[in-house]
This record gives sequence, structure tokens and C-alpha cells, in this order.
Amino acid sequence: MSQQPHVLIIGAGAIGSFYGAILKRAGCTVSAVVRSEYEAIRDGGFQFESPLGDISWRPDHLYRDGDQADSQPDYVILATKVLPNSDRAALIRPWLGEDTGIVLIQNGLDIERELAEAFPNNPIISCLAFIAVSRVAPGQIKHNAYGRLVMGRFPEGIDEHCSRLRDLFVEGGIDIKLTEQVVGERWLKCVWNTPFNPLSVLANGADTYTILDTPGGEQLIRDLMAEVMAVAEADGHPLPSHLPDSNIAGTRKMPAYKNSMALDYLNDRPIELDAILGNVVAIAHRLNVPVPRLETVLVTLRMRQG
Amino acid sequence: MSQQPHVLIIGAGAIGSFYGAILKRAGCTVSAVVRSEYEAIRDGGFQFESPLGDISWRPDHLYRDGDQADSQPDYVILATKVLPNSDRAALIRPWLGEDTGIVLIQNGLDIERELAEAFPNNPIISCLAFIAVSRVAPGQIKHNAYGRLVMGRFPEGIDEHCSRLRDLFVEGGIDIKLTEQVVGERWLKCVWNTPFNPLSVLANGADTYTILDTPGGEQLIRDLMAEVMAVAEADGHPLPSHLPDSNIAGTRKMPAYKNSMALDYLNDRPIELDAILGNVVAIAHRLNVPVPRLETVLVTLRMRQG
Repeated sequence: MSQQPHVLIIGAGAIGSFYGAILKRAGCTVSAVVRSEYEAIRDGGFQFESPLGDISWRPDHLYRDGDQADSQPDYVILATKVLPNSDRAALIRPWLGEDTGIVLIQNGLDIERELAEAFPNNPIISCLAFIAVSRVAPGQIKHNAYGRLVMGRFPEGIDEHCSRLRDLFVEGGIDIKLTEQVVGERWLKCVWNTPFNPLSVLANGADTYTILDTPGGEQLIRDLMAEVMAVAEADGHPLPSHLPDSNIAGTRKMPAYKNSMALDYLNDRPIELDAILGNVVAIAHRLNVPVPRLETVLVTLRMRQG
Repeated sequence: MSQQPHVLIIGAGAIGSFYGAILKRAGCTVSAVVRSEYEAIRDGGFQFESPLGDISWRPDHLYRDGDQADSQPDYVILATKVLPNSDRAALIRPWLGEDTGIVLIQNGLDIERELAEAFPNNPIISCLAFIAVSRVAPGQIKHNAYGRLVMGRFPEGIDEHCSRLRDLFVEGGIDIKLTEQVVGERWLKCVWNTPFNPLSVLANGADTYTILDTPGGEQLIRDLMAEVMAVAEADGHPLPSHLPDSNIAGTRKMPAYKNSMALDYLNDRPIELDAILGNVVAIAHRLNVPVPRLETVLVTLRMRQG
């Protein structure tokens, strides 16, 4: 693997195609598997508007689901949403070689296990993206800001895959934090996401200030954060006690905004309820940690889908 | 007061005009104060479709807000919804005599105090209605079933007003239960209403079976009922421990239905959130009873209104 690796983006939406663009800039061969927008991407590639400059690119190979690969990639990058009815193992199985690294750029907690069990011999590189990017039309993506990845081997450690990918991403122009404890990093991100995201949906797409400034709202957010942190600690990932304060202070420093789950809800797209909340509650049940407020939010959102 | 009393219905909607009809059948003089539907009621009275037969009636006096009363009634009946922006004391003050009894036929908990404080010398007769009745057009009411009242003096006891009204309502054709502990009866009704009603709104108008059969749904209802019962007990009204079982069994014996708060929500009408839930949480806070699930439901519904 001394030459630049071959990377395959599976489910190349806004996030997948953004990180594909970065790796393309680093000299990788980058291919993509797409579903509904095949023609637009075949004809025009991925067109970006980005503060990074012109990062538009064309996949070296463009596949549809069900196509045969020309070669086995060194890495597959999965950047789809994590939804109960999407079988992620089935999505990547046809493209995997024996040594292909599985790179997950996905939100939520405990989202790696399903793939680790399906592909016990492939390395899993778990990534959290801090990015504001959205698809505006088929093949047209607007990168608003950020792009940083927090990355580590699942379930823990940093291996040569992580280091190699780090170097490539950095060469392509974004910031990378390698972590020995990627699961702990996921818990850290959940301290904000698990309370705010589902609550904003339950409140019909409320923005951050509506949530915090409703009477009892900030206290509810703090109580939900405390429940998440109690589960994290029982799961072996104690988190610093200042997190609720610093998360809320950070949120109040930004203008009011609707988080991604609220936007998904308002646009009638499926929400990542299990990845962000359901898995946290499942771990709490397994470890006998009481989470009455998280349960209330989870079950009520499920009632809505029922 | 040996002659039949003079009763004034204030806010004569579906429920108020139904109980007015019953008292009219018992020979009372029954007048009404109405707001928006004055002309229809002046011209046609209250027209009923009811399993009780023809209970349509015309008020002996029909008033608008701001009119002067011809005489002071023996009883005013208030049967409006209990909403934060409706000043119920202001609504009844102009019509009250020194001895006028204030009859509340309203849902919720701790809804009497505001009036007891405003009118410390008038007796307050607190009633819970078990009835299915709805307004179909101005002055047109469909009484579907039931009509029973549970009635007692607030804050406790049974006085001669209660007994006299009981006799009149029974003579008019409905069932009355007198209770020494009307607050305890309100708690009893809250064991069902406080969990089911707000939860159905949070779940976007879900019916009883959707609520119970969602994974975790029945357990959440049971947990919410347990919180209500813990507050009731701390408030001096311990309730029998079989209530969650019997309430849920009773609900499962009926076809799926949407409760009145769900229907209010779906029809863009204001919901009695404080009367049914907010007051329970306020009492819990005063008495230091933990109610994490009730709080979550309350605050989230408030976020929605924000």
C-alpha cells in the first residue's frame, strides 16, 4: 500500500462526497456507489460550493447498487444515515476485500458493533464528523463550514489505518483528531446530541433557544445530559462534570438554530432515533442505569412514528 | 330557597348547556351567559340530540358578557375549559350574589383554589363530569353518552348545596355521586388523564392503542401513573395500588379512541395543559416528589407552544 489508496464512498451523499473530495485532493483514487442520483453525478460529478475553494470532483469509478467492482478498495467509507431499516452490512458486503478497511463517518452511539460482528476480520475506523454540509440538488453540495473528524479504531486504539487516513485527510485540507477512545468520543458528542436532537423533534422542530428558554427547558436539558453521562460512566467512559455547563454555554454563544434531526423531521426525512437515543437507552437498561427522561422522550417519539 | 333555584350557566358550551338542560328538566329557572353564539341561541335555544330524549331548551334569560343580571342566581355553573389566559374569577364576578354557590364542572387538579381565594365567602361545589358531548354547530349539541357527575364541596365535605343540586340533577335524569373528598376524586381521575392526555398530544394525537402498543408505551403509561399516585399520596390522597392495572385493563376493553385533549390538539384548540398536568407537577415540586417523566412531558409540550 505504498501508492495512494483506492477509496470507495458508499452512499455518497453530502457528507460522503465531501470527504471523498478531500481524499481526492490528497491524490487517492476515489470511486463512489450512488443510488438515486446516478445520472447527475455521472454527467457532472460532485459540484461543491465550499470555503475550501474548488473541491468539485468526479469519481474515478461510479457504481450503482448491484454493480460489480473493478477492484477491491483499500477503504470503504460509509457515510449514510443510521436507520433501523437500512442494512448497512448488506450495503458494504459486495465491495469489501479481505483487508478493506471500513471507515464509518456516522453519528450516534454503538453504531459500529453491527458491522464489527458482520466483518470480524476487517478493521473498523470509526469517525465523528463536525461539519455543516448539505445537498442542494443532485450532485450539488454546499459546504458551509468545518470538516473536522475525530477518528479511532473501533473498539479502541489507533492503528496504521487511522494514521494513514489522518495523513491523507490532513493533506487534503481538513483537521483530524486521532483518539485511542473513539467510543468515549461518541459519548462526549452524545451529551449534546442525545438531549437536544430528539427533544427538538418532540417540540415540533424547535430551535436551540426555544428549547433552552421555555420554562423548565434548560433544567430538562441538564437532567437529560446527566442521564447520558451516568450511562457513559457505567459503560466505562466517565465524562468531565463540567460538560452540561460548557455545552449549554457553548450553545448560548451561537445564534438560535435547528439541529440536523429537527431539520430531518421538518423535511419529512427519517430521523436517526436509535443511533442517537435508542442505543443509549438500550445500554442504560443493560447496565441498570435509570434514565426516566430519556425513556420518556424515546417512547413518545416512537408513538409518533406508530 | 324552598322554590326551585335560579341557575346561571356561564360559558354555555356543550357541557354547560347539557347540565343546564338537566336542571331545566328539574324545574329550575336556568339562564345563560354566552359569547360568540348569542344570536343562534337567542333564536333557537340549545338544540340537543341525546339518548335522554328531547332535552332541548331555551334559557330563561340569555346574557352576553358585560350585560347586567336581572337577579342574582342561587348557583352559577362554570363549565369552560381551564386555560391560563382565561380569568375565571373575572368571568363570574359580575354575576355573583353574596350567597351564590359556585359550581365548577371542569377537568383537572387544583382548579378550585383560584376561585376559593377570589370568593372566600361563596360555597364552591366542585364537580367532575363523565360525559361524551360535543358542539356540532352554534346552539346544536350532540350528547353521545353518559352524564354522571361526581360532586362535593371544595375543599372537602358535602353540604346542603351539594345535596340540593344532587336532588335536582337526579330529578333531571342523571346519575350523581356525592363525595366527601372531591380532591381525592380529582386525583383518581388524573391517574388516567394526566398520563394519557398530554402523551397523546406529544405523540401528535395518537389514540389509546397506539400509545399502549408502542414498544415501551404501556410501561411509560404505568410509570407516569405511578408518579401521579406518588404526588397524590404526598398530597394526602393515597390511591389504591391496583389503579394502573385496572385503568389499563379498562382502556383495553374499549375500542381505540383519541381523548379530548388529543382532539383539541388536532383541531387547533387550546389544551388544558396546566389543569391536567402542570398543576400536578407544581404540587410535586412543592412536596418534593420526583416526577421526571411528568416533567419531561410538560416541559416538552411547553416548548411546542413556545
